[in-house]
Amino acid sequence: MRILILGMDGYLGWPTAMYFAKRGHTVYGVDNYFRRNASMDLNMEALIPTPNLHKRVKHWNTSADKAELIGLEIGDITDYNFLKGVFKYCQPDVVIHYAEQPSGPYSMINRANAEMTIENNLTSTLNLAYAVKETNPGCHIIKLGTAGEYGESNVDIPEGWFTYEINGREDTRLFPRQAGSLYHTTKIMDTDMLWFYVRIWGLCVTDLMQGPVYGIVTDEMYTEDGTIDTELLTNFHYDEVFGTVINRFLVQALVNHPLTVYGEGGQTRGYLNIRDTMQCVYLAAMNPPPAGKLEIYNQMTETFSVNQLAEMVKEAADEVLDSHKKEVVISHVPNPRVEKEEHYYNPTYTKLLDLGLQPNPLTKDVLKEMLQLILPYKEQVNKDAIFRGYKWK
Amino acid sequence: MRILILGMDGYLGWPTAMYFAKRGHTVYGVDNYFRRNASMDLNMEALIPTPNLHKRVKHWNTSADKAELIGLEIGDITDYNFLKGVFKYCQPDVVIHYAEQPSGPYSMINRANAEMTIENNLTSTLNLAYAVKETNPGCHIIKLGTAGEYGESNVDIPEGWFTYEINGREDTRLFPRQAGSLYHTTKIMDTDMLWFYVRIWGLCVTDLMQGPVYGIVTDEMYTEDGTIDTELLTNFHYDEVFGTVINRFLVQALVNHPLTVYGEGGQTRGYLNIRDTMQCVYLAAMNPPPAGKLEIYNQMTETFSVNQLAEMVKEAADEVLDSHKKEVVISHVPNPRVEKEEHYYNPTYTKLLDLGLQPNPLTKDVLKEMLQLILPYKEQVNKDAIFRGYKWK
Repeated sequence: MRILILGMDGYLGWPTAMYFAKRGHTVYGVDNYFRRNASMDLNMEALIPTPNLHKRVKHWNTSADKAELIGLEIGDITDYNFLKGVFKYCQPDVVIHYAEQPSGPYSMINRANAEMTIENNLTSTLNLAYAVKETNPGCHIIKLGTAGEYGESNVDIPEGWFTYEINGREDTRLFPRQAGSLYHTTKIMDTDMLWFYVRIWGLCVTDLMQGPVYGIVTDEMYTEDGTIDTELLTNFHYDEVFGTVINRFLVQALVNHPLTVYGEGGQTRGYLNIRDTMQCVYLAAMNPPPAGKLEIYNQMTETFSVNQLAEMVKEAADEVLDSHKKEVVISHVPNPRVEKEEHYYNPTYTKLLDLGLQPNPLTKDVLKEMLQLILPYKEQVNKDAIFRGYKWK
Repeated sequence: MRILILGMDGYLGWPTAMYFAKRGHTVYGVDNYFRRNASMDLNMEALIPTPNLHKRVKHWNTSADKAELIGLEIGDITDYNFLKGVFKYCQPDVVIHYAEQPSGPYSMINRANAEMTIENNLTSTLNLAYAVKETNPGCHIIKLGTAGEYGESNVDIPEGWFTYEINGREDTRLFPRQAGSLYHTTKIMDTDMLWFYVRIWGLCVTDLMQGPVYGIVTDEMYTEDGTIDTELLTNFHYDEVFGTVINRFLVQALVNHPLTVYGEGGQTRGYLNIRDTMQCVYLAAMNPPPAGKLEIYNQMTETFSVNQLAEMVKEAADEVLDSHKKEVVISHVPNPRVEKEEHYYNPTYTKLLDLGLQPNPLTKDVLKEMLQLILPYKEQVNKDAIFRGYKWK
């Protein structure tokens, strides 16, 4: 198949490119380097330096035993002419849309960031719908959504769709969503927008309601002799803006910074390993819905509270970092966000398992392996980036 | 009270300004003339020529017996610095947000219009939330929503909020909405956006889920001797893009154009007279919700199918336009939209009645009065603007 990845320079974009290429698919990707630039602007750069996309692609394409080459173009998909040109050149069977501003905290820092998030995320999704309609209406759109669209639901969360009854009559619509940041709210919006064009134009769309991802490596980053090819690693953010919580805690443990639990720490979400994200996206690509249907998967493998994660990271870190002679401290800091700190949380996530997902559960060994991987980068940690307390209010 | 009207040049904006001024409130308004310019670009200008806003305001302010003066500024509220300056100068107690691209068909003509609709409607609403938060967090935001957010619901439609149960647990969220055009979808989005900032910042917001409005005059357009002051009339669109259905049918009848019923004509919506819109917005302004609550009113007074409206207009027109010796023809044209042409429709709309709304029902006499009003403009009708069949697909 021909795969187009929008946002190929991202945490998930680059591993996805290699995952599909390894399996014999032709991969083409675009990126505008937003996250690289924004994280530099905020002095919150990734821990592990990654070569630019041209260099990574060249390295992949010139290494041995890669089933397929990867192509790329740098550009901004909010420019419709650029995106349409990419579609005409690439003629994808599947397009994977990762090209959104991906950070809740980023969208809450100030008005300009909120506007950027709205315009980037909605215009990119609009352009995608039009590019597919105008160049190849049968192309399967896979959009990375977020389980954050559901928010802290007091009832069990279905996989996207919801059948309900009022006064003896029944209807089925998207489950009512209510998110915890402006960024997450734009993801509700782009789900609504794609669902609109699915209904009107008969597009074929899968929306992945994904929980926070953790992990650094995927199988495609290893050389034949079993060592990691550091040139192929993905970016790894540990800061408050672009880092997800488990990655953040691991780096905090690494540098003897207290693990920053926001408030009570009962905030519960569904998590998954980056290896499982690869499986999920691949399963979605191999199982396109029929035209005119919006398929929704809840993409997660386990649920944890922040307190549970902090305890697990502490336990792993106290073993790995034993030589440091300093126990990991868990610190409950005033919550900069506006959110429930204790709540019911019970999402359904069976569809991807039914399609064949083999979860990699979060264990102490997984955390210890991640710690070993980041240990060499300890001196590069910018402590100033770990916690600034960007407030929701 | 101090009232700020965003979009004061519009079909509802100008009558609202006069309605509040007449009742002793200080009114300030802004507009960027989007609709004037877009309707000129499309060669779909309003039937009744309205003076520009400066001239209308000057005319109002210099006429006798106006309780309060109206102020204005021309500018674009997607420019945050402009809007913030207006807030600092005006210091409103209530802001009424009409400043959105208001046309479903306009948003479906091409990609550029869709992008404009998204960026205008969402950036203006974002800027409004920020301007209120940064200059006067207690200011009551009244946003014109649309009953179109609900779409053709197969169950009874509540007034915004919906309590539901899954597996024995209960939650209350916004009713699941699913709209029929990209424009209407942006209204779902801005409801979600305001509800987010209501939750996070404790803003005070009322969202008016309004059905299509009909009518030309309000009491404030009459002079003391009981004649209409044509300088104070609001714009009256009869075209496929900016005209609402009853207004369209009346002009079609006027010029012996068949009444263009889309498809089967069973499409049912809730309607209201422009005089009732004035009452509703005023009642909303006088009854602000507490901080941190999103109040939602379904703003309509009666429901009709398109077929019913066509029959009513035909009946009225056959009497008024008798001298023309030509019977009004109802024509079922192929539906340019993608929508259900027969469906269940039962919205609740009791909250505004409970607050004191006195509905002006749609009668033959109301339609005949409207026809008499537009009769002098018959020669100005641009038949080319009546039906072009801009398609949803």
